[in-house]
This record gives sequence, C-alpha cells and structure tokens, in this order.
Amino acid sequence: MALLCVGSVALDNVTTPFGVTEDSLGGSAVYFSLAARFFTDVSVVGVIGEDFPAEHVAFLRDQGVDTGGIEAVEGKTFRWTGEYTGDMSSALTREVELGVFGEFAPTLPEAYREFPTLFLANSSPRTQLAVVEQMKAPRFVAADTMNLWIENERDALLELLKRIDCLFINDGEARMLEDDTNLIACGKAILRRGPSSVVIKKGEHGAILFTGDQVIPLPAFPTLEVKDPTGAGDSFAGGFMGYTASVGSESSGGVGRALAYGTVTASFTVGRFGVAGLTEIDRTHVDQRLDAYRKIFAV
Amino acid sequence: MALLCVGSVALDNVTTPFGVTEDSLGGSAVYFSLAARFFTDVSVVGVIGEDFPAEHVAFLRDQGVDTGGIEAVEGKTFRWTGEYTGDMSSALTREVELGVFGEFAPTLPEAYREFPTLFLANSSPRTQLAVVEQMKAPRFVAADTMNLWIENERDALLELLKRIDCLFINDGEARMLEDDTNLIACGKAILRRGPSSVVIKKGEHGAILFTGDQVIPLPAFPTLEVKDPTGAGDSFAGGFMGYTASVGSESSGGVGRALAYGTVTASFTVGRFGVAGLTEIDRTHVDQRLDAYRKIFAV
Repeated sequence: MALLCVGSVALDNVTTPFGVTEDSLGGSAVYFSLAARFFTDVSVVGVIGEDFPAEHVAFLRDQGVDTGGIEAVEGKTFRWTGEYTGDMSSALTREVELGVFGEFAPTLPEAYREFPTLFLANSSPRTQLAVVEQMKAPRFVAADTMNLWIENERDALLELLKRIDCLFINDGEARMLEDDTNLIACGKAILRRGPSSVVIKKGEHGAILFTGDQVIPLPAFPTLEVKDPTGAGDSFAGGFMGYTASVGSESSGGVGRALAYGTVTASFTVGRFGVAGLTEIDRTHVDQRLDAYRKIFAV
Repeated sequence: MALLCVGSVALDNVTTPFGVTEDSLGGSAVYFSLAARFFTDVSVVGVIGEDFPAEHVAFLRDQGVDTGGIEAVEGKTFRWTGEYTGDMSSALTREVELGVFGEFAPTLPEAYREFPTLFLANSSPRTQLAVVEQMKAPRFVAADTMNLWIENERDALLELLKRIDCLFINDGEARMLEDDTNLIACGKAILRRGPSSVVIKKGEHGAILFTGDQVIPLPAFPTLEVKDPTGAGDSFAGGFMGYTASVGSESSGGVGRALAYGTVTASFTVGRFGVAGLTEIDRTHVDQRLDAYRKIFAV
C-alpha cells in the first residue's frame, strides 16, 4: 500500500559531541520518508521557502521519495537549531524559525486523498485534523505529537486521538499527557482515548507498543555508533509505518515485526550525521540488522 | 550448584507514592536469596545486630534460605531509610545507619568456602576481595557495586574486576566508571577490565548483558504494578545467578535465559512492598511469567 506523509521539511543546524552540521536537509517528513522508502512507495506533502536548495529536493527524489507534494512558497524554510550533550538522550532546542511552516495548512492534491495509509508527522493537532478530514477512506492513520501541543492544544489533540489508528509519542510526553508516572498505565490510558495502537518511544531504551491487551516492549538495537540522534523518532515511525503499509495485516511477526523494523531503521539514522545513515544503505542492510536483532531474543 | 551470597541483611524504612514501611526485612543479601531460592539452594553470609527480630531470620529459613551464615553480634542492624518519588526510577536515600554492617569483615565458615558459585552483594570492594580470597575454587563469581565505591575505592574495585566472572552495575554507575555516555561502549570497556560478563541494569528500561562479542539488551517485564522498587536490582541478580547456578553451562536459552529470568523475577519484587512480591509466589509463577515474557519477542 502506498504511504502518504504530511509534515515538516527543514534545514537543520545540529551540534553533538561528535560534530556540527549547518543548513543540512532535515524535518520530520524527510526522515520519515527516507526510512519508509525501504518498504513501500512514499509521498511527502510539505512546504519549503525560497531559500531551500533545489538539490535537496532532487536528492529526495533520487532516493525514491515522491516529492510532488512539497510546495515551494515565498518566505523562509523552517529552520531548527539544536544541540545534544552528555548521553544525547534529548535535544536542547537553541532556536526555531518556523518560517513558511508556521502557516502550513496543506491542501492535499486529489490523488493523495485516495491513499490508504497516512502518517501525520509532528505539527499542530489542528493542522493534523484538517489533513485527516481531506482523506477519502484511509485504512490506517498514524500521528506523532509533542509536548507543545499537549500543553497548548490539548483539546484538539484529544479530538485527533479519536480520528487516528496509531499514536507515536515519546515517554516524557506520554507521562505529561496522562499525568501518570507508570508508562504501561500511560499507554493503556492513551488507547482508551481512541487509537487502536500506541507506540511510546524511549530513545536509547527502545519503545513499547500497546494494542488491544498486548504490551510489547523492545529495546533499542545496541550500537556503539551514536553520532546524531536527530530524526531517530521519525525514522522509527518511518520503518514502522513503511513495513505496516507494505504488508497490510499479513505480517508473519504481527505488529511486533513493525516495531522491530522501526527499531532497526532508527539505529541506522543515529549512527551518522543528518540523513546520511539512511541514504547510504538499502533494504538488504535493514533486513540483515533485523535478523541480528531478532536473534538477540532467542532467550 | 549451590549458591553463596555475601551481603547486607537490613531493616528498611521505605516511602513510595503508594505507602510506607518501617523496620521491614531488607538488605541486598535478603532480596538476592529470596529471588535465587526459586532456582537453587542458596546460603547467606551476613551480619545483624541485637535489634534484629528473630522472626525475620525464621521467616527467611521458612522460605528455604540457608541462614546459617548470618551472624548476630553486639550493636545495631544496618538500617536504610529511603524514598521513591515521581517515576520511582531511583531512590532518594534519607538516612543510612551502617551499624554492625560498617565493620562487616566476614570469615566464611569452612563449608561455604567450597561453594562453586558466589554472589558478592554490594559492599566495599575491599570486603568483597577479602571474601573472594577465602573461596577454594569457585567456578562463577559475580559482584554488585555502587557509585560510592567507584568514587572512593576505585583501585580496589578495579582489582576486584580482575577476580570476578560477572559484574552487575546500574547504568549511571557504568557511565561513571567508564566516563563514557554510550552504555554499549561502557559495557565493553568493563569487559576489558576482567570479567567475562557484565550486566548493566536500567530499572524500568530493562538490562543489557555483555559477554564476549554478544550484547543482549532486554526490556523490563511490562507491568502496571510498581509499588516499591526496593530490592529490584538484587532480585534481578538473584534470578540471574540462581538460574545460572541451577543449569551450569547447560541453559537452552544461553546466557540470555538467565537475563530473562532475572528480569521476570525482579518484576515480582516491584509489584509489592518489601519482600512480599517474592515470598508470596513460587517457581510456577516465575515460569509462567517467563513464558509470557518470551512470547513478546516472537517478532
């Protein structure tokens, strides 16, 4: 099944203990689509400013991503400046220049409205709701969110949760949303708000999937190579959703297999700066790492 | 194989968001032995003061623990007063009264020196070394440690690492010992110091086992019931070491199986206050939970 992703396309300035990047290709929709393309056809809807280098769009296209829905408008591209220190478990945001993404109100091209699978990368839940409403009859809709919306647009977020099938959220945000310290309780509480699946992302500690009565925690793929965590969460979602879209309800490993693919896909992202970890490999590398990962659990 | 544990026997005062206990049976050797007894015969060497209730010793004995090595001496029993708040990921120590444990310098009864398997619960690495030196020809020696010794008795700790087969250490302590933020790098660095296995404990995020080139991360057993994390780490080690002692090198699931048993055993501890989570179940409950845990990984 083809997969549509609606979200940010950005220019990133990132500092980690291992280096610095400036004006590098970034954004949620970019990391998501570069991860999902290993598994299925993926199209991006997003917005860029006049300052966005044409070669970035060409690069995405060369990687197999359908960039037909990336609109160039007057103004500046969304820029994120962030830093990772210490154990790099979370980014310190130094500066956010929303630019044209601040007015992001996508009108989906007609063809995209027919897509069976949709990922709403992190943006205002009102924007996410407006996108869902343009879809004809999607079979699986997932969304990511962040602390800002939990605090400032809680009602819209709760409304969104009734309209989607799966929420991706990190552990601190899940605790904030449910005001509970037990993550298992948080996941189950979010399920009761509407989605049939919830994935709580825990960075280096892996992720927990909740669906029905099932609770599936998986650790991160153990790696010595952690250079830049930027985009790990979106790559995780990309691997998860790409695999899900590719198999429909036919996965031999069930939903856990999608979680495992998300996990190993994200492990490639963190090993290099920017998108390089995803763009210098192919599906074979992902599958080899999945095999190694699954062997760990023969306990 | 019979298993010897040398460590603290204590009286605990614990406060968590779910309740308070006063003068309850505690100590590393207590949690360890109550967890290990599901798998093998376990003997404790420790010290208590005149104030230690005789019924606690009788209780341990009734649970199948050999208490012959617990010596009662003049003075007060080791008392720990601690509190867990928020996500209960780490204890705030309010008060430590070392009492007779401050002078703990065990002379092992002759019979115990023949034991093939030894666990050195957390105490000064000098004390731990003195115990190792009394053993005749142990086949597997493991030790736990803490930040205090990493900071104040580093040389003795490094010496200990050359004399043991397995180190249990939590994630913050591993980072402190190796001055590295990447936990995988920390585990591998500790291996190079001597032990053939290292287990990094991450509380609610599970644990990572390092042995040879193998790196096995496992998540915690997902549970809604977290009432009191006291003793979770020692119960984890007890399950791991008890199972290891019971199978020798014959485990069908390899070292990962020991890690899995440690994980599920600890999940019982945190579900109740004090030692109740361990003393109100039997091996059948542990095995049932192990089965449920292993099913998670059919991804």
